[in-house]
Amino acid sequence: MTALTMATSAPVSRDTKLWHRAGPFVLESGVELPAVQVAYRSWGQLAPDGGNAVLVCHALTGSADADAWWGGLYGPGRALDPARDFIVCSNVLAGCYGTSGPIQPHPEDGEPWGSRFPVVTVRDMVRLQAGLLDHLGVGRLQLVLGPSLGGMQVLEWAASYPERVAAIAPIGVSGRHSAWCIGISESQRRAIYLDPEWRDGRYALDRPPRHGLAVARMIAMFSYRSWENFETRFARKRQEWDGEFAVSSYLNYQGEKLHRRFDANTYVRLTQAMDSHDLGRGRGEYEAVLGALTMPALVVSVDSDVLYPPREQLELAQLLPRARYETLHTPAGHDGFLIETDELSRMILAFRGLD
Amino acid sequence: MTALTMATSAPVSRDTKLWHRAGPFVLESGVELPAVQVAYRSWGQLAPDGGNAVLVCHALTGSADADAWWGGLYGPGRALDPARDFIVCSNVLAGCYGTSGPIQPHPEDGEPWGSRFPVVTVRDMVRLQAGLLDHLGVGRLQLVLGPSLGGMQVLEWAASYPERVAAIAPIGVSGRHSAWCIGISESQRRAIYLDPEWRDGRYALDRPPRHGLAVARMIAMFSYRSWENFETRFARKRQEWDGEFAVSSYLNYQGEKLHRRFDANTYVRLTQAMDSHDLGRGRGEYEAVLGALTMPALVVSVDSDVLYPPREQLELAQLLPRARYETLHTPAGHDGFLIETDELSRMILAFRGLD
Repeated sequence: MTALTMATSAPVSRDTKLWHRAGPFVLESGVELPAVQVAYRSWGQLAPDGGNAVLVCHALTGSADADAWWGGLYGPGRALDPARDFIVCSNVLAGCYGTSGPIQPHPEDGEPWGSRFPVVTVRDMVRLQAGLLDHLGVGRLQLVLGPSLGGMQVLEWAASYPERVAAIAPIGVSGRHSAWCIGISESQRRAIYLDPEWRDGRYALDRPPRHGLAVARMIAMFSYRSWENFETRFARKRQEWDGEFAVSSYLNYQGEKLHRRFDANTYVRLTQAMDSHDLGRGRGEYEAVLGALTMPALVVSVDSDVLYPPREQLELAQLLPRARYETLHTPAGHDGFLIETDELSRMILAFRGLD
Repeated sequence: MTALTMATSAPVSRDTKLWHRAGPFVLESGVELPAVQVAYRSWGQLAPDGGNAVLVCHALTGSADADAWWGGLYGPGRALDPARDFIVCSNVLAGCYGTSGPIQPHPEDGEPWGSRFPVVTVRDMVRLQAGLLDHLGVGRLQLVLGPSLGGMQVLEWAASYPERVAAIAPIGVSGRHSAWCIGISESQRRAIYLDPEWRDGRYALDRPPRHGLAVARMIAMFSYRSWENFETRFARKRQEWDGEFAVSSYLNYQGEKLHRRFDANTYVRLTQAMDSHDLGRGRGEYEAVLGALTMPALVVSVDSDVLYPPREQLELAQLLPRARYETLHTPAGHDGFLIETDELSRMILAFRGLD
């Protein structure tokens, strides 16, 4: 493990470690990546019998720093307690927070991979994580949990490595990406492509398609929230200094905030990976694939989620043979899994039999 | 009345007539338009007592051709029957189907107004329509009806000219544009601004920001439909020839279709007008303003509408003293008012006492 050197200023915590995987990594598409690295964090100590390992999987713009973006789940008496658990979280393949992806240098010319970085799937992400866990000496996982794109990884873990997964907690997700989600993804990618700085994904990292990524984020933001969330916060309020609607100002600000910390090619590749998400792909009938996942599962909905509506998690809970179904009640929308962490922590503790 | 000559190839039916309003038209903002024309259609004959006039108001990308976009409401035994009613529909102010707006030539230089065309409000639209009705000899309207932006005009008619409006039917709309709708509008405008052909709205009409307008439409399309509508139609189907998701192909096609028939500056000005929509503005307390609209009102929701959710029409129905509340049951989403015209026609006939 070497100290992490980032290709860009993307924020990666100092505690992030790097694993350099040996040899080429062949993707589900057949495309071969010559070398792969994984940025990861861990908390706590692996028990001598290896029986306390938990894997956290992050969402679209997350990083290995799960104690930052999901801090409410961490600590004594919480779902994830480093005094009890050995917790691992890694940046996904094609990510921009340390793992191999579009902002890392291409081995041949030292320039960023950019859009030359191949399309990957959630299965590729999970297979790379499995290698990392081998490297860390983790055999079986007591629990794999995650929201949104993280929840897709959770389900793929269960389907790809059922013998290594004792229990799963997919949150705010479906077993296969819906037409609705694919359409919303597509419109975001199209916004990125509109930016003249996009240059077919061959931009310099100091001259990225900022505005395109910002608009993609604006579109995403209302899919992550809800009518009620926006109305309560903003209604028809205007900024005093220029009369702009507060909600417009907020969305523009969220767009700017993202383009300062995220990469457009990464955004394209990760949303494409999400669109590829289909547990049934190449495995047989979708219902049968889910029916064969016999480990205990905690399936969590956010009742105001307009992107992955509760009907999708209800379907999961009906098809997974040992599912417990829970609902986070909040007007926050999809992002509720980041906000209602007290309640979510209680659900996970109860599911783990630790309440 | 003169024959209509369009500044662009935007499709306007041959039956569309033009009214040239005399003198400058002063907007709610105080800005003065030097001359204004209105493109309109009419069906049927005005009764000698003037008691059979009905005004139809169109939505964002609609035109005066209400018998085309709302054809299901027209005909014998239908909500709008030219044998019984004198029906009028006009293209809104700032529209691109014949009424004064960004694609019309500026009187000073003959070039399109473009982004020089001022921001207008729904009240401005309605006041111009009132002038047209004066010109046509229509005093009192038996009914004013319309969906979405059309519904905003309906409500503004009731508030601006209560003595001229016997009954109203606002459909799939609210009494003031929500933060949710404003945010979705803003992201669409930002997509247009990303297109290098936008040029701050000073593009030539034969070189418009096509791709930006197409992405705006893609964003709008999922706000007009629903999770279920997309899932039923597309799920994870792919095109055989290139493997593209059918839903992406569909959205891209819808984007292209719109940029061939609509203008980007017009899209910006009309969405800004929608964002300005607030029945209470300058009139006192919102609830009291609605409470003073004592004409019979048919308020219609689409149960799957994610853009103007039913809670908004329920609020209208609770605040309007003589409201009848009806729901169109369809998974089609907001666009349900264009699709479920059989049921909508029955509702309107019953409301008019013609069933």
